[in-house]
Amino acid sequence: MPQRLRNYLPILDWGRSYNKATLSNDLMAAVIVTIMLIPQSLAYALLAGLPPEAGLYASIVPILLYAVFGTSRALAVGPVAVVSLMTAAALGNIADQGTMGYAVAALTLAFLSGVILLTMGVFKLGFLANFLSHPVIAGFITASGVIIAASQIKHILGISASGDNLISLLVSLWQNLGNTNWVTVIIGVSATAFLFWVRRGLKPFLKSKGASARVADVATKAGPVAAVVLTTVAVWILGLADMGVRIVGSVPQSLPPLTLPDFSLDMMGSLLLPAILISVIGFVESISVAQTLAAKRRQRINPDQELIGLGTANIGAAFTGGFPVTGGFARSVVNFDAGAETPAAGAFTAVGLAIAALALTPLVFFLPQATLAATIIVAVLTLVDFSILKKSWAYSKADFAAVLATMLVTLGDGVELGVTCGVILSIFLHLYKTTRPHIAEVGLVPGTEHFRNIHRHKVETDPTLLTLRIDESLYFANAHFLEDYIYDRLADDKKLKNVVLMCSAINEIDLSALESLEAVNARLRDMGIQLHLSEVKGPVMDRLKKQHFIDDLTGRVFLSQHEAYRALTTQTG
Amino acid sequence: MPQRLRNYLPILDWGRSYNKATLSNDLMAAVIVTIMLIPQSLAYALLAGLPPEAGLYASIVPILLYAVFGTSRALAVGPVAVVSLMTAAALGNIADQGTMGYAVAALTLAFLSGVILLTMGVFKLGFLANFLSHPVIAGFITASGVIIAASQIKHILGISASGDNLISLLVSLWQNLGNTNWVTVIIGVSATAFLFWVRRGLKPFLKSKGASARVADVATKAGPVAAVVLTTVAVWILGLADMGVRIVGSVPQSLPPLTLPDFSLDMMGSLLLPAILISVIGFVESISVAQTLAAKRRQRINPDQELIGLGTANIGAAFTGGFPVTGGFARSVVNFDAGAETPAAGAFTAVGLAIAALALTPLVFFLPQATLAATIIVAVLTLVDFSILKKSWAYSKADFAAVLATMLVTLGDGVELGVTCGVILSIFLHLYKTTRPHIAEVGLVPGTEHFRNIHRHKVETDPTLLTLRIDESLYFANAHFLEDYIYDRLADDKKLKNVVLMCSAINEIDLSALESLEAVNARLRDMGIQLHLSEVKGPVMDRLKKQHFIDDLTGRVFLSQHEAYRALTTQTG
Repeated sequence: MPQRLRNYLPILDWGRSYNKATLSNDLMAAVIVTIMLIPQSLAYALLAGLPPEAGLYASIVPILLYAVFGTSRALAVGPVAVVSLMTAAALGNIADQGTMGYAVAALTLAFLSGVILLTMGVFKLGFLANFLSHPVIAGFITASGVIIAASQIKHILGISASGDNLISLLVSLWQNLGNTNWVTVIIGVSATAFLFWVRRGLKPFLKSKGASARVADVATKAGPVAAVVLTTVAVWILGLADMGVRIVGSVPQSLPPLTLPDFSLDMMGSLLLPAILISVIGFVESISVAQTLAAKRRQRINPDQELIGLGTANIGAAFTGGFPVTGGFARSVVNFDAGAETPAAGAFTAVGLAIAALALTPLVFFLPQATLAATIIVAVLTLVDFSILKKSWAYSKADFAAVLATMLVTLGDGVELGVTCGVILSIFLHLYKTTRPHIAEVGLVPGTEHFRNIHRHKVETDPTLLTLRIDESLYFANAHFLEDYIYDRLADDKKLKNVVLMCSAINEIDLSALESLEAVNARLRDMGIQLHLSEVKGPVMDRLKKQHFIDDLTGRVFLSQHEAYRALTTQTG
Repeated sequence: MPQRLRNYLPILDWGRSYNKATLSNDLMAAVIVTIMLIPQSLAYALLAGLPPEAGLYASIVPILLYAVFGTSRALAVGPVAVVSLMTAAALGNIADQGTMGYAVAALTLAFLSGVILLTMGVFKLGFLANFLSHPVIAGFITASGVIIAASQIKHILGISASGDNLISLLVSLWQNLGNTNWVTVIIGVSATAFLFWVRRGLKPFLKSKGASARVADVATKAGPVAAVVLTTVAVWILGLADMGVRIVGSVPQSLPPLTLPDFSLDMMGSLLLPAILISVIGFVESISVAQTLAAKRRQRINPDQELIGLGTANIGAAFTGGFPVTGGFARSVVNFDAGAETPAAGAFTAVGLAIAALALTPLVFFLPQATLAATIIVAVLTLVDFSILKKSWAYSKADFAAVLATMLVTLGDGVELGVTCGVILSIFLHLYKTTRPHIAEVGLVPGTEHFRNIHRHKVETDPTLLTLRIDESLYFANAHFLEDYIYDRLADDKKLKNVVLMCSAINEIDLSALESLEAVNARLRDMGIQLHLSEVKGPVMDRLKKQHFIDDLTGRVFLSQHEAYRALTTQTG
């Protein structure tokens, strides 16, 4: 079987060595993940503004497709919090929640995301995701977590409220506060408190009672299911639905239906930008989970193939009643911890969820929406981590500015503008730093062949020789700066005979910069000063030789700065 | 008088040393420039789609304001070809040519450009113009020149045609070709041929006839005026206007009128983007002319003060019946060559043009539009220079791609998208190059303290020691690349004990890159390999010390790579 085909279909690789032991591990992981995913899928559908069954559908076919095309052994694909929030934000501009148009727009969004991811994968554009810096991602995820938690408060209070950002959400909540349903509040608050306790306090408690680590672990993971069962039974027996507690209600008993996105150019056009953002954010979240897990088992992830896996998963979601999906952190970690060894575990999870969609949906009729909101709130608060503000402040003001802008704009305006601002600002700040490169005047460290900044070290210099070490590649954005710097430096120095540009940190000289250097060379020639270069890197020199610059240079090109120093000080001294 | 005030009002500087000699030089230059500017101003107004007098008005008050606030001694401010074309493109979306709304939109565009330039000047944002690389500017100017020339063909043929880009212009010309006015064609073609001959052939011809260089020079500059006089007289005497030759017609005899831009948010909003582009392009054109001329006399230009000068000039244009202006190449060179010594020459030119606007406009009644079109065509064809394609191709494919995209999009879609694409593409290509940095494995050049690429030089290495020189700053866009590179390199090397990252070309390590280095450090620790750094720059080291990275580093930080090599090879060898 050709390696090329195996690269595109990773299933051919791991499928060949599949055996009984792997099967039993994968099956075990699938059971645990399925139990965890049932409430989570319903909850994220709610967050995305879709009917609960959409959450199940979005977890079935996408998982199967990722199992065929994805490279991560443990990644679990499906609806995740941040992408669901972004989906709701994008669809809110297109249609009203609960309408047919809204559901079709969700399918279209998934389809577009899928096509974008697939295209990025085929053309190996995965590197584009690198333009989301770590601080921007951290700020975005934290702010999104806050918005998601705030968006669920209405379900805890049993009121209606809407808004894409923190401010509009809080205003809307405040206006509707009068309609609070106190029975719902009791359910919602106790479910939230219970889930927090399960997450923080249950494991130590069980261990102190002598339970094994394994039992404590399983009990912790079963927490959300317990909350679901307890509150559903309470609503059913006590007839709380008649007291205004909103419940999930009837969910169709069906396998994922065959659905069609809206292929009209109009709809595609208005969803394109959100689809790009969802694709990139989803990819970044997914790849970072996949890489973290792969590193633990010394496996490698192929980012471009990951794009193909996620792309097909989203296209699958679009045709089977789902919405945009990606690899989720919580579910993947559970899958990994539960011992999943191959993507087959995902396939078994899909089967489990299909059974749930077919047979178990009547059981969630009385499930209160407040319980689902509680599971979301507890899950997303683990995403919220403001420490990045402190860390970036201490390290670099540019990184801090990018984090802060991302957070503030996300909270104040919404996810789409938030992440866009973060990316643009971090690129701009990076470019800005390169427009004013650090230029050091250097001299010889006595007794060595090293040259260091004359302002930081005790060094030898010569009054007829000026050596400038330029700590940046030269390109259009900083070409003028260097020219101005040199002219300013020469203005008050009459003794100079030679100027050396030490190029050890210059990794590129583009055409604009070359033209600036030509101008400097001509200007210095008029002033009777020779221009030399030293320590020019191989690739830079190769390129300079393609133009007349080296021929026109008034001075010489020295392999090392030490050689330049010796030649030019002996010559003049 | 405080220096600060003099910085903001350069007139206070040169005004103090003004004397008779300077006055006579400035007056002489003003006369020559005024004669040249009268037809040119009318022609550029035509190009911008405005009545001819607007060209004169746009040259009077703006010149005076620039004389007060500008820093260049020779720059002549007024309508220029590329900015006039951009004005027409921007206004074409707002109103029809010839309407009142069109003229008001032109004032608004000038006002917005003025405010943008002034703001950039006050906040010292002139460096933003550096993001227009030389190749992008060259490509843009060439493509604009082609479009401008094409846009004037209709006047030469005496037909109507419109279009923002080359394709729509040519299609429109083709469709209207049947209406060609042959008398107009005779005037237009002979004027064009005459002007070309004046520009190329007159000077050598006069010199061969024994004329002095000075006389030949003046005769060449008077060419356009001669064409104007000859064709105007021909149209008048032969009554050609009755044969369908379009003439300038009656131009009001007036000083620049007081006018008001449209301050509605709606109008401002729709002109904001074009105004930004016009400001930046105008500034780049102006500053490069100013710097070229200043360099010839060893004067310096202050870019931020230039922004203030151009900003006030445009605001002046907005309130006196003009349209966007900037420093023009041709007129400035003429001004400089004619001996202008201070901005007072500009002020005298303004007086000359004011007299023309008051007294001479009846004389241009019979001036054929074809003659103005001929002056534009001959002037802009000097801007057209496709050699940048060849030059950039030879030097760097990235620069070539930026030039080509700028040209094609400008020709195919228009100036606004053209220049935007050029800027975005050149920034993207620059960033792209930095996402895959050059990483060289280096070894010791025997008998020296220098380390060079093992693939380019004969060097000493040690099997337990891997030294990687990273030829790029580390930041979010390439942090993952380095991580992947190191993991891939280590995968097939079991003997390694030490990895040194040689940081001589690393000018920055941002927070994302720091987190990647932390990950590399942890991963190598698990593999039993120590990670060291060498030749870390001062500013980078200062920053690294703010975090735990240096404490957590499994290895050491060496001042020089040679030190690292000695320590790590002795230790293990």
